[in-house]
Amino acid sequence: MAQDYRDVSFADRRAVLRGAAAGAALFAPGAVLAESGDLAAIRKAVEANHPEAVQRLQDWIRLPSIAAENRDMEKGCSHMMELARDAGFQHVERVPTSGHPGVFATLDAGAKKWMGIYFMYDVKQYDPAEWSVPPVEARLVDKPGFGKVVMGRGAVNQKGPEANFLAALHAFRKAGRKLPVNLVLVAEGEEEIGSPHFSEIVRRPHVLAALKKCTGVIIPTGWQSPATGGVAVNLGAKGVIEFELIASGEKWGRGPARDIHSSEKARVDSPAWRLVAALSTLVTPDGNMPAVDGYMANVRPLTPRERALIAEAARSMSEEDAKRMLGVKSWIDDLPWQKALERLASAPTINIEGLVAGYTGPGGKTVLPGRAVAKIDCRIVPNQTKDEAVAKIRAHLDKHGYQDIEMVVSGGYDPTETPEDSKLVKAELAVYARAKVPTTLYPRLAGSWPGVVFTGQPVGLPAGQFGLGHGSGAHALDEYFVIESTNPKVAGMDDSIMGFVDFLYEIAAVG
Amino acid sequence: MAQDYRDVSFADRRAVLRGAAAGAALFAPGAVLAESGDLAAIRKAVEANHPEAVQRLQDWIRLPSIAAENRDMEKGCSHMMELARDAGFQHVERVPTSGHPGVFATLDAGAKKWMGIYFMYDVKQYDPAEWSVPPVEARLVDKPGFGKVVMGRGAVNQKGPEANFLAALHAFRKAGRKLPVNLVLVAEGEEEIGSPHFSEIVRRPHVLAALKKCTGVIIPTGWQSPATGGVAVNLGAKGVIEFELIASGEKWGRGPARDIHSSEKARVDSPAWRLVAALSTLVTPDGNMPAVDGYMANVRPLTPRERALIAEAARSMSEEDAKRMLGVKSWIDDLPWQKALERLASAPTINIEGLVAGYTGPGGKTVLPGRAVAKIDCRIVPNQTKDEAVAKIRAHLDKHGYQDIEMVVSGGYDPTETPEDSKLVKAELAVYARAKVPTTLYPRLAGSWPGVVFTGQPVGLPAGQFGLGHGSGAHALDEYFVIESTNPKVAGMDDSIMGFVDFLYEIAAVG
Repeated sequence: MAQDYRDVSFADRRAVLRGAAAGAALFAPGAVLAESGDLAAIRKAVEANHPEAVQRLQDWIRLPSIAAENRDMEKGCSHMMELARDAGFQHVERVPTSGHPGVFATLDAGAKKWMGIYFMYDVKQYDPAEWSVPPVEARLVDKPGFGKVVMGRGAVNQKGPEANFLAALHAFRKAGRKLPVNLVLVAEGEEEIGSPHFSEIVRRPHVLAALKKCTGVIIPTGWQSPATGGVAVNLGAKGVIEFELIASGEKWGRGPARDIHSSEKARVDSPAWRLVAALSTLVTPDGNMPAVDGYMANVRPLTPRERALIAEAARSMSEEDAKRMLGVKSWIDDLPWQKALERLASAPTINIEGLVAGYTGPGGKTVLPGRAVAKIDCRIVPNQTKDEAVAKIRAHLDKHGYQDIEMVVSGGYDPTETPEDSKLVKAELAVYARAKVPTTLYPRLAGSWPGVVFTGQPVGLPAGQFGLGHGSGAHALDEYFVIESTNPKVAGMDDSIMGFVDFLYEIAAVG
Repeated sequence: MAQDYRDVSFADRRAVLRGAAAGAALFAPGAVLAESGDLAAIRKAVEANHPEAVQRLQDWIRLPSIAAENRDMEKGCSHMMELARDAGFQHVERVPTSGHPGVFATLDAGAKKWMGIYFMYDVKQYDPAEWSVPPVEARLVDKPGFGKVVMGRGAVNQKGPEANFLAALHAFRKAGRKLPVNLVLVAEGEEEIGSPHFSEIVRRPHVLAALKKCTGVIIPTGWQSPATGGVAVNLGAKGVIEFELIASGEKWGRGPARDIHSSEKARVDSPAWRLVAALSTLVTPDGNMPAVDGYMANVRPLTPRERALIAEAARSMSEEDAKRMLGVKSWIDDLPWQKALERLASAPTINIEGLVAGYTGPGGKTVLPGRAVAKIDCRIVPNQTKDEAVAKIRAHLDKHGYQDIEMVVSGGYDPTETPEDSKLVKAELAVYARAKVPTTLYPRLAGSWPGVVFTGQPVGLPAGQFGLGHGSGAHALDEYFVIESTNPKVAGMDDSIMGFVDFLYEIAAVG
């Protein structure tokens, strides 16, 4: 579920940034970099390295590691380690977890500051039948309006941006320049299944000690809006919990243990009806507010600053575009635009992501199902916690007589927050500004990412997304990432790499 | 849905007849047949014809016509016509409908009485991966405890029993004997999708006129209990309605038009929650009684005679067996056995046969579904009608504010009833008694079959199931029908054929 901030933020960003000033030059070096005298040499190295950087990304896409399918996880981990070594990390270590292994690596350049980098080496599942090209051949494709793109699973989510970050490190070396900051890399192979064991990695004492030295942590991204070139700088994200509620004859002790003939309904209880009854207690009748006992107790309202940021964003965004992209005609309660955005950023949700019971194929089949499942996801906001929300939902079900309904939590994590005045956010904004990339400061993504692993205890660092470039299609078909951009508002690979170069200099200056 | 009386009645029968007296001889000819002098000749003809009768059934199984898949429907119809011609029907006619064609055929033997025969030439879908043999090769298999069986889709449902009936007609011809009754055959190819157009066939003036002359209508069956050899004689069956309730952003005008990212729940309405809310108004909180306004108005309580028949059946049936077979520990409201059987026969139901919304695969996927579907089936009892029930559910949804929720009715029909003192029922009981087959008179199947097409207006005939023999696996894997029985309580093919021979003589006598 971690992944699921991406499409949303992209959708919003396209709307958010419409009408904002478009940047003229994508890469303009910061004072620090310009003064370093390294700029020309590094830029030259980036360009010289271009073919091998493309090749590196293609090779990586050709090795899809998919945790949900237990596919090539060890290979993916080894490849991740090799990529780190090649990029100059001196210490590279496989970190076992209760699930699939992660990687911890450090690059000590003898600099004063340390920066944390978060990578995922896994990718989302894919269905080749849906794609216009083979999904893991990493073909270079001309995409009208965008330029030359690499198309394949993981292109934007997250190998493309990550490969660009690595290419930045290669460029330093080729240019014979030392990195302005030291690096701590933590990588996992389970991002696409909700990072269930990632905290095991960062809590290892030596990993934790290394992270503690860092100014902050970024995940490399490439989410520039094709309309404006803009990006959002998000100060946090909601937490998420995914679980199944399962009503079954087996656990209930009433109704059938398996699907039986539907005519039996006249004398046999129905787990499906029981699930419907239990579900209907969880939310208000309109389905829009949690009705779980005590659920809202720790919900912190938006601060005046958060409201102000949303108000500002609301002015620059197109409500019509947002509605059109989502295929909705009205917001909950017919809220006006700004209130809808406030609700998006602040409201905890209990959402039905799936319902499965009995016969689910075309037409009908006369069965009384022995089992009915609701797949639920909850978005939680500060100061709710995952554990608190899970406990309250369980207690609510029990209190209402549904002790038999199983609640199987598959993943989730707490909300994440990074202060607006953190050095990390300031550095991001400075680099974006120099690149003339319009930015929108946004208080909280309605989607989720496991940033809390860094922002929460025991690590306690600012954490966010950073990067130039553009791709789309994460979790969908024909995922792509721009290599050579024909859109003057969007960075191609080399400019994206230079963005990371500038970012490292900026962190060295402010970190 | 029509099909769905079978498994139930079989399940009940296994329980019903446990402990009943087992027959010693499966076929003992009635007085009429014995006195006709035809018995020995016909028996000899049946035996001589045995190989060709088996071949006829195998050939038929090898041509599966599946209406739901629009598979070989014209071929199946032509084959049905050919089977009728071969069996001696002089007039054989393809009857087009708004759906797939049916067959109308008559065999005028110059007898005084006419008998109606109902055939289905279609079979249920199947998944070869589930089967232990290829499902339409019609292999002959040794099934321990049963004998030689033909295994294949349609073996018991309904080609085996139907082929045995046809074999009875072939035996008359081979023996040089005239049929004691004339026959009207009506066949359809849409039984497995709920007989949506079958009434078009019987309402054709010349078909209706032919049927009007008949003593009654039977569908050939082969449902002897392997434990006792017994069968149930059912005096009616509940009606059924199958429909989908669909909540969608598209129709609602709120919520998304398609699946969107689940984080949007904070500002976007949810069709899935709307469906849950609407569903919860349809039944009492325990899910066991329709709560649709005015739904019960025309429900006729059980008559004293119906209660008496159920009380009698309750005594001969094992409650424990019934519970074990269904995998249930208790009946609704912890009813005692007889009350549970009364409820089974008399209670209208609103059952959830399936729930489908959003992501239905393994694990989770963070979507807010644009559409949510409940697959519902309702069993209706005299004097409810399908049209009445559909109208009341629609009105109920509208009144409760769910005008946007679509109700897509895919099929169904009214309840059917045949009088206990009808000549048809008396003839069935007489033949079973002579064959020493234990019988249970049952007021109403909780499952459904389209008997109302015959018992209702304009046809207005008694109608039911009749036949000796045994098979199982209708709608399931490894469907089979016994050809040569090693179970002395169960008729093999030849005895089953002789049962039909006796039945025709009996109808000639009483009809």
